[in-house]
Amino acid sequence: MSELETAAHPFAGDPVFDLHVGGKMAIQSSVELAGADELSLAYTPGVARVCTAIAENPDLTQHYTWVPNTVAVITDGTAVLGLGDIGPAAAMPVMEGKAILFKQFGGVDGIPICLDTTDTEEIIETVVRLAPSFGGINLEDISAPRCFEIEDRLKERLDIPVFHDDQHGTAVVALAALKNALKLTGRTPEQTRVVISGAGAAGVAIAKILIVAGITDIAVTDRRGVVSSDRSDLTPVKKQLAEITADRNGRKGTLADAMDGADVYLGVSGGTVPEEVVATMADDAIIFAMANPTPEVHPDVAHKYARVVATGRSDFPNQINNVLAFPGIFRGAFDVRATAITEGMKLAAAEALAALVGDALAEDMVIPGPFDPRVGPAVSAAVAEAARRDGVARS
Amino acid sequence: MSELETAAHPFAGDPVFDLHVGGKMAIQSSVELAGADELSLAYTPGVARVCTAIAENPDLTQHYTWVPNTVAVITDGTAVLGLGDIGPAAAMPVMEGKAILFKQFGGVDGIPICLDTTDTEEIIETVVRLAPSFGGINLEDISAPRCFEIEDRLKERLDIPVFHDDQHGTAVVALAALKNALKLTGRTPEQTRVVISGAGAAGVAIAKILIVAGITDIAVTDRRGVVSSDRSDLTPVKKQLAEITADRNGRKGTLADAMDGADVYLGVSGGTVPEEVVATMADDAIIFAMANPTPEVHPDVAHKYARVVATGRSDFPNQINNVLAFPGIFRGAFDVRATAITEGMKLAAAEALAALVGDALAEDMVIPGPFDPRVGPAVSAAVAEAARRDGVARS
Repeated sequence: MSELETAAHPFAGDPVFDLHVGGKMAIQSSVELAGADELSLAYTPGVARVCTAIAENPDLTQHYTWVPNTVAVITDGTAVLGLGDIGPAAAMPVMEGKAILFKQFGGVDGIPICLDTTDTEEIIETVVRLAPSFGGINLEDISAPRCFEIEDRLKERLDIPVFHDDQHGTAVVALAALKNALKLTGRTPEQTRVVISGAGAAGVAIAKILIVAGITDIAVTDRRGVVSSDRSDLTPVKKQLAEITADRNGRKGTLADAMDGADVYLGVSGGTVPEEVVATMADDAIIFAMANPTPEVHPDVAHKYARVVATGRSDFPNQINNVLAFPGIFRGAFDVRATAITEGMKLAAAEALAALVGDALAEDMVIPGPFDPRVGPAVSAAVAEAARRDGVARS
Repeated sequence: MSELETAAHPFAGDPVFDLHVGGKMAIQSSVELAGADELSLAYTPGVARVCTAIAENPDLTQHYTWVPNTVAVITDGTAVLGLGDIGPAAAMPVMEGKAILFKQFGGVDGIPICLDTTDTEEIIETVVRLAPSFGGINLEDISAPRCFEIEDRLKERLDIPVFHDDQHGTAVVALAALKNALKLTGRTPEQTRVVISGAGAAGVAIAKILIVAGITDIAVTDRRGVVSSDRSDLTPVKKQLAEITADRNGRKGTLADAMDGADVYLGVSGGTVPEEVVATMADDAIIFAMANPTPEVHPDVAHKYARVVATGRSDFPNQINNVLAFPGIFRGAFDVRATAITEGMKLAAAEALAALVGDALAEDMVIPGPFDPRVGPAVSAAVAEAARRDGVARS
């Protein structure tokens, strides 16, 4: 119908751009308006009765609107993929991609919202004002450290799920894969020494979920080395991070210092770890080099020193892909009308993901593939059950 | 997939509520993600190239996102249908209805946004921050006089179409029907005396578009009578309105005073006009009693004194329904990437609508029916042409 969609486009012939012409999503009407009768039910005068009913009992929103099945996919465009601060307009293709993944893998209606502000207070106020329109809020590609405060304060102010996927989606999938890798290499959480390179959104969230999962010997590194309280350059977020990780085991110094003898390397930083540093890890090491598109340790190098290797890429085994988590997490939260996404729900998602591997567990199979049809149902069921257990389910 | 959609609901068996279960709309993916190859085109790593291209040339948003075909349907829930200030949650069914009408009649992707604020400044700031996400802004059911300032200031700040449908949609369709009614009754705009009852969003907009269309003898009434500058109780908006309507022809007093001898009555007020007042209108009078669900003058009464009668209802002839205007107006604006919706584009829409009636013109056929398939294409073509003429088209 639109002239826009049929127009020639500047990068015609390039498969990526060809696929993006007209965008990747559309609105679909769930009701057929064939004539005046349907119009009078779906719109005036009939709709007025639905509005009145909701005004008297706001809970009816759950039955008679699309709101309970929708998630706003909200960004300010400051930390998009590995591209950085490219602004709200340029972030839209990623948000649309996220929205269609929500739909395909979780049956959730995602609406991409790219905000023309990077101010923490303005982002918070804007999302609070939008909240009646949505069943949940998925924060996306907002740079650290603002992302932490924005998520924390929105969780306080809203009674719908708020989830910063760059933190928790990555953390859930990494934990799931790590659980299986530990099982395979005969380690317990308590005896496992972990290095996380990258103290941004994903690094902080991974550290926190590992602690909840019982792993206590963690060192997180940024560009200046281990994030530890002996440093004078720490931001408040990193200071807190140091206190719950390196400070507890006395680790400090460089990345190389931390890697020496470590059991697990989790990379969410970009950059490259020199091969001679990788070589100092413990026997049967575990390397998840998750930077995209260039892993911190190339799998060919990693395999020389590690028993289990994972990346963020689809062209190697063991892909740590957020799509394994966020659709099922929101599906499960929505199915029980959860008021929040708790630590218990995230852990349950990771456990369900890890369990799906089952007897197929092997060095090149510590996490299901993104198109495994069991993933969405398994994650959502586990998350819904955890929501009930944690007392945040409303149905 | 969702438990929500299959659950029993409180008003099961009521056709209106049955139709609303799960809401009236959904997100649809335009691309099929069958496997890793498609995923790598639509999402990482492929999508990064689209983001980078847009960051370098923001104009590419027009080709590679859904943005240019989307309109945010934004309300604060303060003036919903005839229900008044029912709040954002209860407004959602109307906004969803609007969104599916946008889709069905204009191929436009409407996204309902119900805001949890009624503060003018907050609404303006919020919409400005949301703007990169949408190709246009349709303001809906925001009470007067805030709606005027909100629309005016958003038009100043944004370079995409901003349109308050309660004002301009109603005005366009009423003008179209009135053009045909004047033709049928042999009147010219210059010799026509009009009374508009209701000085809210619709009344103000109708007065303004009639003036642009050449009708100068207009009296607008509110609950206290004719809006004229001899009154001491006028708001700034009503003072301006008085100056461009009643003050120019010296009309003042009560609704009954204004109706005496008037050619046209346009009701957008609710309430009832007494039959003895209707009886004082000119011969071959024209009565558009547009209040929903109860017209200001019942058609049975109106027909006793008027030659042409229209209402807002689907169960009488000559339905003045905004759906005749807004989908085609946005379709036309989007097809030429218009930066605004001008007076010329609104007039063109009204003219195109009026012209569609053609040889079928009769007392009970002054405006096409909402399901006339010619409406959307005719309105959008006329609007696109007017946008080019007015210099607001970008393609």
